[in-house]
Amino acid sequence: MLEISSASNSLYKRLLSLTEAKGLKKEKSFLLSGKNLVQEHLKNPKLSLESEIFTEGMKPSTSVKFQIKMSKALFETLDVLGTHSPLLVLQQPEIPEWDFEKKHQGLQLLLPVGDPANLGAAIRSAEAFGVENVILLKESAHPFLPKAVKASAGSITRVCLFRGPSIQALKDPEILALDLKGTNLSDFHWPENGYLLGGEEGAGLPAGSKFRRLSIPTNQVESLNATVALSIALFHYSQRPKRKKS
Amino acid sequence: MLEISSASNSLYKRLLSLTEAKGLKKEKSFLLSGKNLVQEHLKNPKLSLESEIFTEGMKPSTSVKFQIKMSKALFETLDVLGTHSPLLVLQQPEIPEWDFEKKHQGLQLLLPVGDPANLGAAIRSAEAFGVENVILLKESAHPFLPKAVKASAGSITRVCLFRGPSIQALKDPEILALDLKGTNLSDFHWPENGYLLGGEEGAGLPAGSKFRRLSIPTNQVESLNATVALSIALFHYSQRPKRKKS
Repeated sequence: MLEISSASNSLYKRLLSLTEAKGLKKEKSFLLSGKNLVQEHLKNPKLSLESEIFTEGMKPSTSVKFQIKMSKALFETLDVLGTHSPLLVLQQPEIPEWDFEKKHQGLQLLLPVGDPANLGAAIRSAEAFGVENVILLKESAHPFLPKAVKASAGSITRVCLFRGPSIQALKDPEILALDLKGTNLSDFHWPENGYLLGGEEGAGLPAGSKFRRLSIPTNQVESLNATVALSIALFHYSQRPKRKKS
Repeated sequence: MLEISSASNSLYKRLLSLTEAKGLKKEKSFLLSGKNLVQEHLKNPKLSLESEIFTEGMKPSTSVKFQIKMSKALFETLDVLGTHSPLLVLQQPEIPEWDFEKKHQGLQLLLPVGDPANLGAAIRSAEAFGVENVILLKESAHPFLPKAVKASAGSITRVCLFRGPSIQALKDPEILALDLKGTNLSDFHWPENGYLLGGEEGAGLPAGSKFRRLSIPTNQVESLNATVALSIALFHYSQRPKRKKS
Protein backbone atom coordinates (compact mmCIF):
# COMPACT_ATOMS: atom_id res chain seq x y z
CA MET A 1 0.00 0.00 0.00
CA LEU A 2 1.19 3.45 -0.93
CA GLU A 3 0.57 6.45 1.32
CA ILE A 4 0.44 9.96 -0.13
CA SER A 5 0.06 13.14 1.87
CA SER A 6 2.00 15.64 -0.23
CA ALA A 7 0.36 17.62 -3.01
CA SER A 8 3.67 17.67 -4.87
CA ASN A 9 3.73 13.87 -5.17
CA SER A 10 3.85 13.07 -8.89
CA LEU A 11 1.33 10.21 -8.74
CA TYR A 12 -1.11 12.47 -6.88
CA LYS A 13 -0.68 15.16 -9.52
CA ARG A 14 -1.37 12.60 -12.24
CA LEU A 15 -4.51 11.42 -10.42
CA LEU A 16 -5.71 14.99 -9.87
CA SER A 17 -5.37 15.66 -13.60
CA LEU A 18 -8.03 12.95 -14.18
CA THR A 19 -10.69 15.32 -12.83
CA GLU A 20 -10.35 17.45 -15.99
CA ALA A 21 -10.54 16.81 -19.73
CA LYS A 22 -6.92 17.77 -20.40
CA GLY A 23 -5.56 15.17 -18.01
CA LEU A 24 -8.02 12.52 -19.21
CA LYS A 25 -6.75 12.99 -22.77
CA LYS A 26 -3.15 12.66 -21.74
CA GLU A 27 -3.30 9.90 -19.16
CA LYS A 28 -5.79 7.39 -20.58
CA SER A 29 -7.01 6.49 -17.08
CA PHE A 30 -10.11 7.74 -15.29
CA LEU A 31 -11.69 7.85 -11.84
CA LEU A 32 -14.77 5.81 -11.00
CA SER A 33 -16.55 7.19 -7.94
CA GLY A 34 -19.71 6.42 -6.03
CA LYS A 35 -20.14 3.49 -3.64
CA ASN A 36 -22.60 1.57 -5.82
CA LEU A 37 -20.71 2.07 -9.09
CA VAL A 38 -17.44 1.01 -7.46
CA GLN A 39 -18.97 -2.12 -5.93
CA GLU A 40 -20.66 -3.03 -9.21
CA HIS A 41 -17.41 -2.65 -11.10
CA LEU A 42 -15.47 -4.82 -8.64
CA LYS A 43 -18.09 -7.56 -8.97
CA ASN A 44 -18.21 -7.40 -12.75
CA PRO A 45 -15.17 -5.55 -14.13
CA LYS A 46 -15.46 -4.29 -17.70
CA LEU A 47 -12.23 -2.27 -17.82
CA SER A 48 -8.73 -2.84 -16.42
CA LEU A 49 -8.31 -1.73 -12.83
CA GLU A 50 -5.18 0.23 -11.94
CA SER A 51 -5.69 1.09 -8.29
CA GLU A 52 -8.04 2.02 -5.50
CA ILE A 53 -7.78 5.30 -3.61
CA PHE A 54 -9.09 5.79 -0.09
CA THR A 55 -8.51 7.85 3.02
CA GLU A 56 -8.75 7.36 6.78
CA GLY A 57 -12.11 6.11 7.99
CA MET A 58 -12.80 4.22 4.73
CA LYS A 59 -12.61 0.50 4.22
CA PRO A 60 -10.86 -0.29 0.93
CA SER A 61 -11.90 -3.45 -0.90
CA THR A 62 -9.92 -6.62 -0.25
CA SER A 63 -9.78 -7.58 -3.92
CA VAL A 64 -7.75 -4.66 -5.28
CA LYS A 65 -3.97 -5.22 -5.29
CA PHE A 66 -2.71 -1.66 -5.69
CA GLN A 67 -4.06 0.51 -2.88
CA ILE A 68 -3.34 4.20 -2.37
CA LYS A 69 -4.05 5.79 0.98
CA MET A 70 -4.32 9.57 0.69
CA SER A 71 -4.48 12.22 3.36
CA LYS A 72 -8.01 13.51 3.85
CA ALA A 73 -7.26 16.87 2.23
CA LEU A 74 -5.79 15.29 -0.92
CA PHE A 75 -8.55 12.67 -1.16
CA GLU A 76 -11.21 15.38 -1.16
CA THR A 77 -9.64 17.06 -4.20
CA LEU A 78 -10.01 13.79 -6.15
CA ASP A 79 -13.52 13.01 -4.85
CA VAL A 80 -14.98 15.91 -6.86
CA LEU A 81 -18.52 14.53 -6.61
CA GLY A 82 -18.27 14.36 -2.82
CA THR A 83 -19.03 10.64 -2.57
CA HIS A 84 -16.94 10.14 0.63
CA SER A 85 -16.24 6.62 -0.55
CA PRO A 86 -13.18 4.90 -2.15
CA LEU A 87 -12.41 5.70 -5.81
CA LEU A 88 -11.17 3.32 -8.49
CA VAL A 89 -8.62 4.26 -11.12
CA LEU A 90 -9.56 2.42 -14.33
CA GLN A 91 -8.09 2.31 -17.79
CA GLN A 92 -10.07 4.17 -20.43
CA PRO A 93 -11.12 1.99 -23.33
CA GLU A 94 -9.76 2.87 -26.76
CA ILE A 95 -12.19 5.19 -28.58
CA PRO A 96 -11.62 4.55 -32.29
CA GLU A 97 -12.63 6.87 -35.11
CA TRP A 98 -16.05 5.95 -36.58
CA ASP A 99 -16.00 4.74 -40.17
CA PHE A 100 -18.96 6.37 -41.98
CA GLU A 101 -18.09 4.61 -45.24
CA LYS A 102 -18.76 1.14 -43.86
CA LYS A 103 -22.27 -0.27 -43.69
CA HIS A 104 -23.39 -0.64 -40.08
CA GLN A 105 -26.23 -2.60 -38.48
CA GLY A 106 -28.81 -1.01 -36.19
CA LEU A 107 -29.15 2.50 -34.83
CA GLN A 108 -26.01 4.55 -34.18
CA LEU A 109 -26.21 7.57 -31.92
CA LEU A 110 -24.35 10.80 -32.73
CA LEU A 111 -23.80 12.98 -29.64
CA PRO A 112 -22.68 16.65 -29.70
CA VAL A 113 -23.30 17.07 -25.96
CA GLY A 114 -20.92 19.46 -24.19
CA ASP A 115 -22.34 19.18 -20.69
CA PRO A 116 -20.79 16.10 -19.04
CA ALA A 117 -23.87 15.26 -16.95
CA ASN A 118 -26.16 15.46 -20.00
CA LEU A 119 -23.70 13.37 -22.02
CA GLY A 120 -23.66 10.67 -19.35
CA ALA A 121 -27.46 10.66 -19.09
CA ALA A 122 -27.79 10.33 -22.88
CA ILE A 123 -25.41 7.36 -22.90
CA ARG A 124 -27.37 5.76 -20.05
CA SER A 125 -30.56 5.94 -22.14
CA ALA A 126 -28.68 4.72 -25.24
CA GLU A 127 -27.65 1.54 -23.44
CA ALA A 128 -31.11 1.02 -21.95
CA PHE A 129 -32.81 1.21 -25.35
CA GLY A 130 -30.42 -0.88 -27.43
CA VAL A 131 -28.38 1.61 -29.42
CA GLU A 132 -25.48 -0.27 -31.03
CA ASN A 133 -22.79 2.39 -30.91
CA VAL A 134 -22.33 5.92 -29.55
CA ILE A 135 -20.33 8.32 -31.69
CA LEU A 136 -18.97 11.32 -29.79
CA LEU A 137 -18.86 14.38 -32.00
CA LYS A 138 -16.18 17.05 -31.56
CA GLU A 139 -18.62 19.14 -29.49
CA SER A 140 -18.95 16.43 -26.85
CA ALA A 141 -17.53 16.65 -23.36
CA HIS A 142 -14.91 14.08 -22.41
CA PRO A 143 -16.91 10.92 -21.62
CA PHE A 144 -14.73 9.97 -18.65
CA LEU A 145 -15.17 13.19 -16.70
CA PRO A 146 -16.46 12.30 -13.20
CA LYS A 147 -19.87 13.92 -13.82
CA ALA A 148 -20.35 12.06 -17.11
CA VAL A 149 -19.42 8.70 -15.58
CA LYS A 150 -21.81 9.30 -12.67
CA ALA A 151 -24.75 10.44 -14.81
CA SER A 152 -24.27 7.41 -17.06
CA ALA A 153 -24.71 5.15 -13.98
CA GLY A 154 -21.81 3.12 -15.35
CA SER A 155 -23.16 2.77 -18.92
CA ILE A 156 -20.09 4.64 -20.16
CA THR A 157 -17.91 1.68 -19.15
CA ARG A 158 -20.08 -0.73 -21.16
CA VAL A 159 -21.26 0.90 -24.41
CA CYS A 160 -19.12 1.00 -27.59
CA LEU A 161 -17.79 4.55 -27.93
CA PHE A 162 -16.38 6.07 -31.12
CA ARG A 163 -15.09 9.47 -32.17
CA GLY A 164 -16.76 11.44 -34.93
CA PRO A 165 -16.39 14.79 -36.68
CA SER A 166 -17.97 18.11 -35.67
CA ILE A 167 -21.76 18.39 -36.00
CA GLN A 168 -21.02 21.04 -38.67
CA ALA A 169 -19.27 18.42 -40.82
CA LEU A 170 -22.23 15.97 -40.81
CA LYS A 171 -23.75 16.24 -44.26
CA ASP A 172 -25.76 13.04 -44.75
CA PRO A 173 -29.44 14.04 -45.19
CA GLU A 174 -30.44 10.56 -44.00
CA ILE A 175 -29.27 11.35 -40.47
CA LEU A 176 -32.29 11.63 -38.17
CA ALA A 177 -32.32 14.69 -35.93
CA LEU A 178 -34.71 15.78 -33.18
CA ASP A 179 -36.17 19.22 -33.68
CA LEU A 180 -39.23 21.30 -32.78
CA LYS A 181 -40.67 20.67 -36.23
CA GLY A 182 -40.44 17.52 -38.29
CA THR A 183 -42.08 14.14 -38.77
CA ASN A 184 -44.22 13.39 -35.72
CA LEU A 185 -42.42 10.68 -33.76
CA SER A 186 -45.74 8.88 -33.16
CA ASP A 187 -46.17 8.30 -36.91
CA PHE A 188 -42.54 7.48 -37.57
CA HIS A 189 -41.30 4.09 -38.73
CA TRP A 190 -37.68 3.59 -37.78
CA PRO A 191 -35.35 2.37 -40.48
CA GLU A 192 -33.56 -0.91 -39.72
CA ASN A 193 -30.17 0.84 -39.87
CA GLY A 194 -29.35 4.51 -39.45
CA TYR A 195 -28.07 7.41 -37.40
CA LEU A 196 -29.84 9.50 -34.77
CA LEU A 197 -28.35 12.87 -33.81
CA GLY A 198 -28.91 13.83 -30.18
CA GLY A 199 -29.30 17.47 -29.21
CA GLU A 200 -27.52 19.86 -26.89
CA GLU A 201 -29.64 21.72 -24.33
CA GLY A 202 -30.43 25.19 -25.65
CA ALA A 203 -28.74 24.70 -29.02
CA GLY A 204 -30.64 24.11 -32.23
CA LEU A 205 -29.45 22.27 -35.33
CA PRO A 206 -26.71 23.95 -37.39
CA ALA A 207 -28.14 26.53 -39.83
CA GLY A 208 -28.80 25.03 -43.24
CA SER A 209 -28.49 21.42 -42.09
CA LYS A 210 -30.51 18.97 -44.18
CA PHE A 211 -31.10 16.21 -41.65
CA ARG A 212 -34.38 14.26 -41.56
CA ARG A 213 -36.20 16.00 -38.74
CA LEU A 214 -38.23 14.17 -36.11
CA SER A 215 -40.33 15.93 -33.53
CA ILE A 216 -41.93 14.78 -30.31
CA PRO A 217 -45.55 15.86 -30.07
CA THR A 218 -46.13 18.07 -27.02
CA ASN A 219 -48.80 20.42 -25.73
CA GLN A 220 -46.60 23.46 -26.01
CA VAL A 221 -44.43 25.14 -28.59
CA GLU A 222 -41.69 24.89 -25.95
CA SER A 223 -38.97 22.32 -26.50
CA LEU A 224 -38.35 19.44 -24.14
CA ASN A 225 -35.14 19.01 -22.18
CA ALA A 226 -32.62 17.68 -24.72
CA THR A 227 -31.80 14.49 -22.80
CA VAL A 228 -35.49 13.84 -22.18
CA ALA A 229 -36.30 14.31 -25.88
CA LEU A 230 -33.50 11.96 -26.95
CA SER A 231 -34.55 9.34 -24.40
CA ILE A 232 -38.18 9.44 -25.58
CA ALA A 233 -37.02 8.97 -29.18
CA LEU A 234 -34.85 6.01 -28.12
CA PHE A 235 -37.74 4.49 -26.15
CA HIS A 236 -39.92 4.81 -29.27
CA TYR A 237 -37.13 3.20 -31.31
CA SER A 238 -36.90 0.30 -28.85
CA GLN A 239 -40.67 -0.25 -29.26
CA ARG A 240 -40.53 -0.58 -33.07
CA PRO A 241 -41.98 -3.76 -34.54
CA LYS A 242 -39.04 -6.12 -35.03
CA ARG A 243 -38.50 -7.57 -38.50
CA LYS A 244 -38.38 -11.34 -38.54
CA LYS A 245 -34.98 -12.70 -39.35
CA SER A 246 -35.18 -15.05 -42.35
CA MET B 1 -34.63 53.59 -9.70
CA LEU B 2 -33.09 52.33 -6.50
CA GLU B 3 -29.34 51.81 -6.15
CA ILE B 4 -27.94 49.31 -3.64
CA SER B 5 -24.28 48.75 -2.92
CA SER B 6 -24.32 47.75 0.74
CA ALA B 7 -24.71 44.14 1.83
CA SER B 8 -26.46 45.34 4.98
CA ASN B 9 -29.30 46.94 3.00
CA SER B 10 -32.51 45.28 4.15
CA LEU B 11 -34.02 44.94 0.65
CA TYR B 12 -30.80 43.31 -0.55
CA LYS B 13 -30.92 40.87 2.36
CA ARG B 14 -34.53 40.02 1.53
CA LEU B 15 -33.61 39.40 -2.13
CA LEU B 16 -30.59 37.29 -1.18
CA SER B 17 -32.83 35.10 0.97
CA LEU B 18 -34.75 34.17 -2.22
CA THR B 19 -31.81 32.02 -3.34
CA GLU B 20 -32.63 29.50 -0.59
CA ALA B 21 -35.69 27.54 0.46
CA LYS B 22 -36.02 29.20 3.86
CA GLY B 23 -36.30 32.69 2.36
CA LEU B 24 -38.62 31.50 -0.40
CA LYS B 25 -41.01 30.13 2.23
CA LYS B 26 -40.99 33.35 4.20
CA GLU B 27 -41.02 35.99 1.46
CA LYS B 28 -43.42 34.59 -1.17
CA SER B 29 -41.40 36.15 -3.99
CA PHE B 30 -38.82 34.44 -6.22
CA LEU B 31 -36.07 35.29 -8.68
CA LEU B 32 -36.45 34.58 -12.40
CA SER B 33 -33.08 34.45 -14.13
CA GLY B 34 -31.83 33.72 -17.63
CA LYS B 35 -32.09 36.10 -20.57
CA ASN B 36 -34.62 34.02 -22.52
CA LEU B 37 -36.86 33.25 -19.54
CA VAL B 38 -36.87 36.91 -18.49
CA GLN B 39 -37.74 38.13 -21.99
CA GLU B 40 -40.46 35.51 -22.36
CA HIS B 41 -41.98 36.53 -19.06
CA LEU B 42 -41.98 40.23 -19.91
CA LYS B 43 -43.75 39.46 -23.20
CA ASN B 44 -46.29 37.17 -21.64
CA PRO B 45 -46.45 37.65 -17.86
CA LYS B 46 -48.09 34.84 -15.88
CA LEU B 47 -47.22 36.09 -12.40
CA SER B 48 -47.09 39.55 -10.79
CA LEU B 49 -43.84 41.38 -11.33
CA GLU B 50 -42.28 43.15 -8.35
CA SER B 51 -39.02 44.49 -9.73
CA GLU B 52 -36.06 44.02 -12.01
CA ILE B 53 -32.49 43.80 -10.74
CA PHE B 54 -29.47 44.67 -12.84
CA THR B 55 -25.91 45.91 -12.52
CA GLU B 56 -23.53 48.10 -14.52
CA GLY B 57 -23.06 47.04 -18.11
CA MET B 58 -26.59 45.58 -18.36
CA LYS B 59 -29.55 47.08 -20.13
CA PRO B 60 -32.67 46.78 -17.98
CA SER B 61 -35.99 46.45 -19.76
CA THR B 62 -37.99 49.62 -20.42
CA SER B 63 -41.27 48.07 -19.35
CA VAL B 64 -40.53 47.37 -15.69
CA LYS B 65 -41.44 50.20 -13.32
CA PHE B 66 -39.47 49.27 -10.23
CA GLN B 67 -35.77 48.93 -11.12
CA ILE B 68 -32.98 48.06 -8.70
CA LYS B 69 -29.40 48.74 -9.68
CA MET B 70 -26.96 46.68 -7.62
CA SER B 71 -23.21 46.89 -7.31
CA LYS B 72 -21.50 44.15 -9.30
CA ALA B 73 -20.45 42.24 -6.19
CA LEU B 74 -23.99 42.16 -4.75
CA PHE B 75 -25.57 41.32 -8.10
CA GLU B 76 -23.37 38.26 -8.45
CA THR B 77 -24.57 36.85 -5.13
CA LEU B 78 -28.15 36.98 -6.45
CA ASP B 79 -27.30 35.65 -9.93
CA VAL B 80 -26.55 32.20 -8.49
CA LEU B 81 -26.83 30.52 -11.91
CA GLY B 82 -24.27 32.92 -13.39
CA THR B 83 -26.54 34.22 -16.15
CA HIS B 84 -24.89 37.73 -16.26
CA SER B 85 -28.26 39.12 -17.27
CA PRO B 86 -30.99 41.09 -15.41
CA LEU B 87 -33.16 39.21 -12.91
CA LEU B 88 -36.87 39.60 -12.28
CA VAL B 89 -38.46 39.43 -8.86
CA LEU B 90 -41.88 37.79 -9.25
CA GLN B 91 -44.63 36.89 -6.84
CA GLN B 92 -44.96 33.20 -6.11
CA PRO B 93 -48.39 31.83 -6.93
CA GLU B 94 -50.41 30.41 -4.05
CA ILE B 95 -49.77 26.66 -3.71
CA PRO B 96 -52.93 25.24 -2.12
CA GLU B 97 -53.24 21.89 -0.38
CA TRP B 98 -54.45 19.13 -2.73
CA ASP B 99 -57.83 17.65 -1.90
CA PHE B 100 -57.60 13.88 -2.34
CA GLU B 101 -61.25 13.43 -1.38
CA LYS B 102 -62.57 15.30 -4.39
CA LYS B 103 -62.95 13.63 -7.78
CA HIS B 104 -60.47 15.07 -10.28
CA GLN B 105 -60.29 14.90 -14.05
CA GLY B 106 -57.21 13.71 -15.94
CA LEU B 107 -53.79 12.65 -14.74
CA GLN B 108 -52.33 14.25 -11.62
CA LEU B 109 -48.62 14.03 -10.97
CA LEU B 110 -47.23 13.40 -7.46
CA LEU B 111 -43.60 14.52 -7.11
CA PRO B 112 -41.28 13.61 -4.20
CA VAL B 113 -38.23 15.10 -5.94
CA GLY B 114 -35.65 16.65 -3.60
CA ASP B 115 -33.15 17.80 -6.24
CA PRO B 116 -34.31 21.20 -7.57
CA ALA B 117 -32.97 20.63 -11.10
CA ASN B 118 -34.71 17.25 -11.35
CA LEU B 119 -37.91 18.75 -9.94
CA GLY B 120 -37.87 21.51 -12.56
CA ALA B 121 -37.17 19.06 -15.38
CA ALA B 122 -40.06 16.82 -14.24
CA ILE B 123 -42.44 19.79 -14.22
CA ARG B 124 -41.26 20.79 -17.71
CA SER B 125 -42.18 17.33 -19.01
CA ALA B 126 -45.49 17.40 -17.11
CA GLU B 127 -46.52 20.58 -18.90
CA ALA B 128 -45.35 19.27 -22.28
CA PHE B 129 -47.41 16.10 -21.99
CA GLY B 130 -50.65 17.51 -20.62
CA VAL B 131 -50.66 16.67 -16.93
CA GLU B 132 -53.46 18.60 -15.26
CA ASN B 133 -51.90 19.32 -11.88
CA VAL B 134 -48.60 18.80 -10.11
CA ILE B 135 -48.73 17.87 -6.44
CA LEU B 136 -45.50 18.53 -4.55
CA LEU B 137 -45.00 15.96 -1.81
CA LYS B 138 -43.21 16.84 1.44
CA GLU B 139 -39.95 15.40 0.02
CA SER B 140 -39.90 17.89 -2.84
CA ALA B 141 -37.46 20.75 -3.14
CA HIS B 142 -38.90 24.26 -3.12
CA PRO B 143 -40.24 24.76 -6.66
CA PHE B 144 -39.06 28.37 -6.85
CA LEU B 145 -35.39 27.72 -6.14
CA PRO B 146 -33.35 29.21 -9.02
CA LYS B 147 -32.21 25.78 -10.28
CA ALA B 148 -35.76 24.43 -10.33
CA VAL B 149 -37.11 27.46 -12.20
CA LYS B 150 -34.31 27.20 -14.77
CA ALA B 151 -34.63 23.42 -15.34
CA SER B 152 -38.39 23.87 -15.79
CA ALA B 153 -37.68 26.33 -18.64
CA GLY B 154 -40.46 28.47 -17.15
CA SER B 155 -43.05 25.68 -16.85
CA ILE B 156 -43.08 26.22 -13.10
CA THR B 157 -44.68 29.64 -13.63
CA ARG B 158 -47.49 28.10 -15.72
CA VAL B 159 -48.52 24.72 -14.29
CA CYS B 160 -51.00 24.36 -11.42
CA LEU B 161 -49.00 23.47 -8.31
CA PHE B 162 -50.42 21.93 -5.14
CA ARG B 163 -49.01 20.70 -1.86
CA GLY B 164 -49.38 17.09 -0.77
CA PRO B 165 -48.37 14.82 2.11
CA SER B 166 -45.15 12.80 2.45
CA ILE B 167 -44.72 9.87 0.05
CA GLN B 168 -44.89 7.68 3.18
CA ALA B 169 -48.44 8.85 3.80
CA LEU B 170 -49.75 7.94 0.32
CA LYS B 171 -51.83 4.83 0.82
CA ASP B 172 -54.07 4.61 -2.25
CA PRO B 173 -53.22 1.36 -4.12
CA GLU B 174 -54.63 2.93 -7.28
CA ILE B 175 -51.70 5.37 -7.46
CA LEU B 176 -49.47 4.47 -10.42
CA ALA B 177 -45.74 4.35 -9.63
CA LEU B 178 -42.74 3.75 -11.85
CA ASP B 179 -40.52 0.90 -10.74
CA LEU B 180 -38.02 -1.63 -12.13
CA LYS B 181 -40.72 -4.30 -12.07
CA GLY B 182 -44.39 -3.88 -12.85
CA THR B 183 -46.83 -3.75 -15.74
CA ASN B 184 -44.88 -3.17 -18.94
CA LEU B 185 -45.60 0.42 -20.01
CA SER B 186 -45.97 -0.71 -23.64
CA ASP B 187 -48.98 -2.86 -22.73
CA PHE B 188 -50.49 -0.37 -20.34
CA HIS B 189 -53.82 1.36 -20.90
CA TRP B 190 -53.96 4.62 -19.00
CA PRO B 191 -57.06 5.25 -16.92
CA GLU B 192 -59.00 8.39 -17.80
CA ASN B 193 -58.37 9.84 -14.33
CA GLY B 194 -55.67 9.00 -11.85
CA TYR B 195 -52.39 9.72 -10.11
CA LEU B 196 -48.84 9.04 -11.28
CA LEU B 197 -46.04 9.09 -8.69
CA GLY B 198 -42.70 10.32 -10.04
CA GLY B 199 -39.46 8.94 -8.65
CA GLU B 200 -36.40 10.39 -6.98
CA GLU B 201 -33.01 9.54 -8.50
CA GLY B 202 -31.45 6.67 -6.55
CA ALA B 203 -34.43 6.16 -4.23
CA GLY B 204 -36.89 3.31 -4.59
CA LEU B 205 -40.51 3.22 -3.51
CA PRO B 206 -41.19 3.16 0.24
CA ALA B 207 -40.98 -0.35 1.70
CA GLY B 208 -44.35 -2.07 1.77
CA SER B 209 -46.05 0.45 -0.53
CA LYS B 210 -48.95 -1.03 -2.47
CA PHE B 211 -48.97 1.25 -5.52
CA ARG B 212 -49.79 -0.10 -9.01
CA ARG B 213 -46.32 -0.51 -10.50
CA LEU B 214 -45.45 0.39 -14.05
CA SER B 215 -42.10 -0.40 -15.63
CA ILE B 216 -40.39 0.85 -18.75
CA PRO B 217 -38.98 -2.00 -20.84
CA THR B 218 -35.20 -1.66 -21.25
CA ASN B 219 -32.29 -3.82 -22.35
CA GLN B 220 -30.69 -3.84 -18.95
CA VAL B 221 -31.63 -4.58 -15.39
CA GLU B 222 -30.32 -1.07 -14.67
CA SER B 223 -32.87 1.62 -13.98
CA LEU B 224 -33.27 4.72 -16.12
CA ASN B 225 -32.60 8.23 -14.88
CA ALA B 226 -35.66 9.11 -12.77
CA THR B 227 -36.60 12.22 -14.78
CA VAL B 228 -36.12 10.34 -18.05
CA ALA B 229 -38.31 7.46 -16.84
CA LEU B 230 -41.06 9.85 -15.72
CA SER B 231 -40.91 11.76 -19.02
CA ILE B 232 -41.20 8.55 -21.05
CA ALA B 233 -44.24 7.52 -19.02
CA LEU B 234 -45.81 10.96 -19.57
CA PHE B 235 -45.07 10.77 -23.32
CA HIS B 236 -46.77 7.37 -23.41
CA TYR B 237 -49.72 8.86 -21.50
CA SER B 238 -49.99 11.73 -24.00
CA GLN B 239 -50.15 9.15 -26.82
CA ARG B 240 -53.11 7.24 -25.33
CA PRO B 241 -56.16 6.83 -27.55
CA LYS B 242 -58.52 9.66 -26.55
CA ARG B 243 -62.07 8.73 -25.59
CA LYS B 244 -64.74 10.45 -27.60
CA LYS B 245 -66.77 12.93 -25.61
CA SER B 246 -70.45 12.12 -25.86
